Amino acid sequence: MNSNNYCVIMAGGVGMRLWPMSRKVYPKQFQDILGCGRTLLQQTYDRYSRIVPPENIIISTHVDYTDIVHEQLPQVAKERVVHEPAFRGTAPSIANLACHIRALNPQANIVVAQSDQLVLDEDKFIETVGKGFDFVEDNNKLVVIGIKPTCPETRYGYIQAEGEPESELFYKVRTFTEKPAIDFARIFVDSGEFFWNSGIYIWNVQAIIDTMSLCLPDMMNVLKDVYERIPQRDARRRQAYELYTSFPTASFDVNVMERSDNVYLVVGDFGWADIGTWETLYSTLPKDAHDNVFIGGKALKYGSRNNMVVAPKQKLVVLQDVNDMLVVDTEEALVICKKGNESDIRKFLNDAKMKFGDKVE
Amino acid sequence: MNSNNYCVIMAGGVGMRLWPMSRKVYPKQFQDILGCGRTLLQQTYDRYSRIVPPENIIISTHVDYTDIVHEQLPQVAKERVVHEPAFRGTAPSIANLACHIRALNPQANIVVAQSDQLVLDEDKFIETVGKGFDFVEDNNKLVVIGIKPTCPETRYGYIQAEGEPESELFYKVRTFTEKPAIDFARIFVDSGEFFWNSGIYIWNVQAIIDTMSLCLPDMMNVLKDVYERIPQRDARRRQAYELYTSFPTASFDVNVMERSDNVYLVVGDFGWADIGTWETLYSTLPKDAHDNVFIGGKALKYGSRNNMVVAPKQKLVVLQDVNDMLVVDTEEALVICKKGNESDIRKFLNDAKMKFGDKVE
Repeated sequence: MNSNNYCVIMAGGVGMRLWPMSRKVYPKQFQDILGCGRTLLQQTYDRYSRIVPPENIIISTHVDYTDIVHEQLPQVAKERVVHEPAFRGTAPSIANLACHIRALNPQANIVVAQSDQLVLDEDKFIETVGKGFDFVEDNNKLVVIGIKPTCPETRYGYIQAEGEPESELFYKVRTFTEKPAIDFARIFVDSGEFFWNSGIYIWNVQAIIDTMSLCLPDMMNVLKDVYERIPQRDARRRQAYELYTSFPTASFDVNVMERSDNVYLVVGDFGWADIGTWETLYSTLPKDAHDNVFIGGKALKYGSRNNMVVAPKQKLVVLQDVNDMLVVDTEEALVICKKGNESDIRKFLNDAKMKFGDKVE
Repeated sequence: MNSNNYCVIMAGGVGMRLWPMSRKVYPKQFQDILGCGRTLLQQTYDRYSRIVPPENIIISTHVDYTDIVHEQLPQVAKERVVHEPAFRGTAPSIANLACHIRALNPQANIVVAQSDQLVLDEDKFIETVGKGFDFVEDNNKLVVIGIKPTCPETRYGYIQAEGEPESELFYKVRTFTEKPAIDFARIFVDSGEFFWNSGIYIWNVQAIIDTMSLCLPDMMNVLKDVYERIPQRDARRRQAYELYTSFPTASFDVNVMERSDNVYLVVGDFGWADIGTWETLYSTLPKDAHDNVFIGGKALKYGSRNNMVVAPKQKLVVLQDVNDMLVVDTEEALVICKKGNESDIRKFLNDAKMKFGDKVE
């Protein structure tokens, strides 16, 4: 493995659309959402430790979650868990991590990974990331993995590729598009030019710092100054930490990727899903003969179809004449509702907070 | 309180029709089924300790449950928890308890109580039992509380009363009838002659021993011999315990009550239900504006009607578009099924045992 290759796993989200399983005190990435015995974060770590040297894997999270990260990944040294004092969006976070890694290794290539994604064909995935690393090693291009869409999904952002691929699988990116309406999504997929935005980025550390310095010069000047001025790692981190809250909230996709002309897309075709909602989970996972998806739980079903059921592993779940429902059972909450209506989950949570207090979150 | 008055609380049942809440290792009488902070056994104890001196309350249970009884009723001395080594039906159990109490006090009057019943008007209930005690004090009549039926319930046994009451509320009993079909139940209720069999009996100890000696002479001879021959209480109990398994299984109602001509009925009209099935619980308990019954749980409901929901007290339960369902959530199992189909519960349990082993019971 190339010792210049680094991986940053982004693990700071709260994932409230997967409530009540995903909770503010214990978000989805720290849970065994798929019922396979490893949490999403652990699975992500396992996946990337086949691509970069394990000592080059850095976890980025919110300060509230550092203890959970250490508990779930005891093999990751404390200094490789970078936490932020406040939520300021993806741009300040990626900038800070880039400066941090450049101080460790100015020749670093970095893959920015998400901690809440499902990958079915890991070998193909590893091959794709490997090609991305090769592509960015000697130039200042930014790479994003674009997933070949399998349906007009409206829960993902889309990336439009320009004409023919430059070298094998790498297309120049024309536009980034936020989650589209279903009509647009259909047109996107039919055109063959659009790919799902995986949120997985690959670049060399100098390229991303140079690009961000053009897009967000004020923030980058502050950060670069800290990293150049303070030689001791701990003192530097403390200073960056203190300055972090003064940064404006900024999205990396909007402020950097959409405004840069050096962004390339590598096609990913390895069975991928962002585990953002119960519905994406349902559409991704294998179903039984009656279109039910069961995660965890010992299931007994009678005349029940098209349900998504999530329960603790050891729990017996009996369903009779239950159809088209989402059933999520955790220690704290049981939700039984119509499947596929994502916005209701947020409503339930808000109502529950109003009625029973913030503890339900 | 009359120091000759005793109460035996029958607490040995397994109550599988209330599975998964009622479990073999922890049957319904030991659970806070109503979500009021006291288990059914504790509620029963509280109720009868207003009628007889607490030191005259005896708990009859299966050997497997003695620890639970001591835990839930620490105020009951060990020797007042009588357990049986095997299930032999109600007749041997009542006979053994009668002999046991006669040895303590030959002038005893006894009320045999069930540990899984709901009583709404406790004052009226206490008055009724008190009248029963007065009635049996000086004669050999056996009294059963007959509940004035409020609907043609097919889950209860019925008792037919003969003509006019003998003294105030006491009718001579004509027949006992097992759970009837709905057509018969309607005729019974319309006739005004039939009452629900509460399973609550009142008599003096000599009357029940004399009556049982006529109906089940072999068993009674064995028992009486033990109690007359062995003066030490512990040795006597040990001997009765050893002989118990040799008794044939026999129902008290069938073998004693139905065959005796000294049985009287006192009318009970205090809001009563036998907590035998989810449906009886549903029909008994107060409903919200949409005909839902919630026991335990912090409820959030959206467009959901006519459900029976049982959950742990602290658990948040969100229902959306759920109708006519029974939802029972315990630590070990979650059952979501059509409400009102009692026989299915047994089927679920049997299937679960076949598929996942006896531990689910």
